[in-house]
Amino acid sequence: MKIRTLLSPLNVEELYFAKKTTVVVDVLRATTTIITALYNGAKEIIPVSSIKFAMKISGSNQMLLGGERNAEKIDGFTLGNSPLEYTEEIVKGKSIILFTTNGSKALVHAKFSDNLFVASFNNALSATNKILKTGNNLEILCSGNNGMYCLEDSVCAGMIINFILGKKENVELDDASKTCLILYTKNKRRLKKMLGETDHGKILLAKGFNNDIVHAAKENIYNITPQYLEGKIKI
Amino acid sequence: MKIRTLLSPLNVEELYFAKKTTVVVDVLRATTTIITALYNGAKEIIPVSSIKFAMKISGSNQMLLGGERNAEKIDGFTLGNSPLEYTEEIVKGKSIILFTTNGSKALVHAKFSDNLFVASFNNALSATNKILKTGNNLEILCSGNNGMYCLEDSVCAGMIINFILGKKENVELDDASKTCLILYTKNKRRLKKMLGETDHGKILLAKGFNNDIVHAAKENIYNITPQYLEGKIKI
Repeated sequence: MKIRTLLSPLNVEELYFAKKTTVVVDVLRATTTIITALYNGAKEIIPVSSIKFAMKISGSNQMLLGGERNAEKIDGFTLGNSPLEYTEEIVKGKSIILFTTNGSKALVHAKFSDNLFVASFNNALSATNKILKTGNNLEILCSGNNGMYCLEDSVCAGMIINFILGKKENVELDDASKTCLILYTKNKRRLKKMLGETDHGKILLAKGFNNDIVHAAKENIYNITPQYLEGKIKI
Repeated sequence: MKIRTLLSPLNVEELYFAKKTTVVVDVLRATTTIITALYNGAKEIIPVSSIKFAMKISGSNQMLLGGERNAEKIDGFTLGNSPLEYTEEIVKGKSIILFTTNGSKALVHAKFSDNLFVASFNNALSATNKILKTGNNLEILCSGNNGMYCLEDSVCAGMIINFILGKKENVELDDASKTCLILYTKNKRRLKKMLGETDHGKILLAKGFNNDIVHAAKENIYNITPQYLEGKIKI
């Protein structure tokens, strides 16, 4: 099995993902939010890559608009991008149209994958099992931060790689995957602290999203792996 | 002082570099080759981002064409991209037009920088001193591998960051710079071995460039820092 990690969606074109098994990571906060919302009973998440398109497809009262631009809630949207907003009371049975600066765009970017999974620290073990069931090589797509590298997604990629190495022999890692594994090993006992020290984490703390950091750092609290299929993410 | 590391030239536009101090790293092999050639007496290196343009500006017998495409010498070029080809006998007094898959393109990409330096393991300490003399913040541009991340440039970036931290207080590192520092710390006593294990290093070994790996891994053997100015790199 070969694992390749992409440290930013900008590194490859959309067609790169054709016929591949891909897992998208955006720890702060889109994939953490998607997993939390689906665990709390949301019917589905529809990731979009523009606010205009989000507005266009919204409409019925079974649909909620959620997301952020540079960590701020968007005018006219019901929900922001804090996973803690996506409670059972609010999301149960709803379709959620999600636009975020990085994660929703990364998911749309990888849409031609044969299997497209969603992971964060909250479900990394579940995602690993789902990935291994496909029997394929793996692309880990880190959503990054406005096209730039971000540390937290690499550490989460490293956690998935570490789980795979514990379950499978003859796994071949590329340079980026080796890097992520080193970063995970270095940070595995201090995930919450690491998140608060990252470029994006510092911005979230300054904006008062401390509890988002605490939630995002929780390991394997959800035994679900959302999957993207025909424009929608479901479990 | 703030240090930001770009893990691939694709992450930013050319104008991003305006008014900045930038150091470009392409350990395997362009920046190692440039530093070696200038140390051995080449008059100047002219990095270009297309083979067509390299052919167009070449002409006089004081000029040599050098470079590679995917580690192979280019038809019609006098020199490849092995630093060991750039001996005093061959390069002394010559202008060298250099096209390579990653490094020469990264240098051209960063051309609007106020100060644009060239570094590898061979001259990292000299480059650090030159950078600190500018008194500016620093952008470290890793050339990567065909737009993708590569490990060896990150480790070299980490070496420069480590030298700066030893000479200066209150240095602020972004996520990518922190990552590079961790990678350097992990690999500092095994640079040659690390180079041979990277994606690009494995290709070079398979093509018989073992001595290039040995040369590229040598730390601070040259006390020079090439600088790009108006299209030409000189010391």
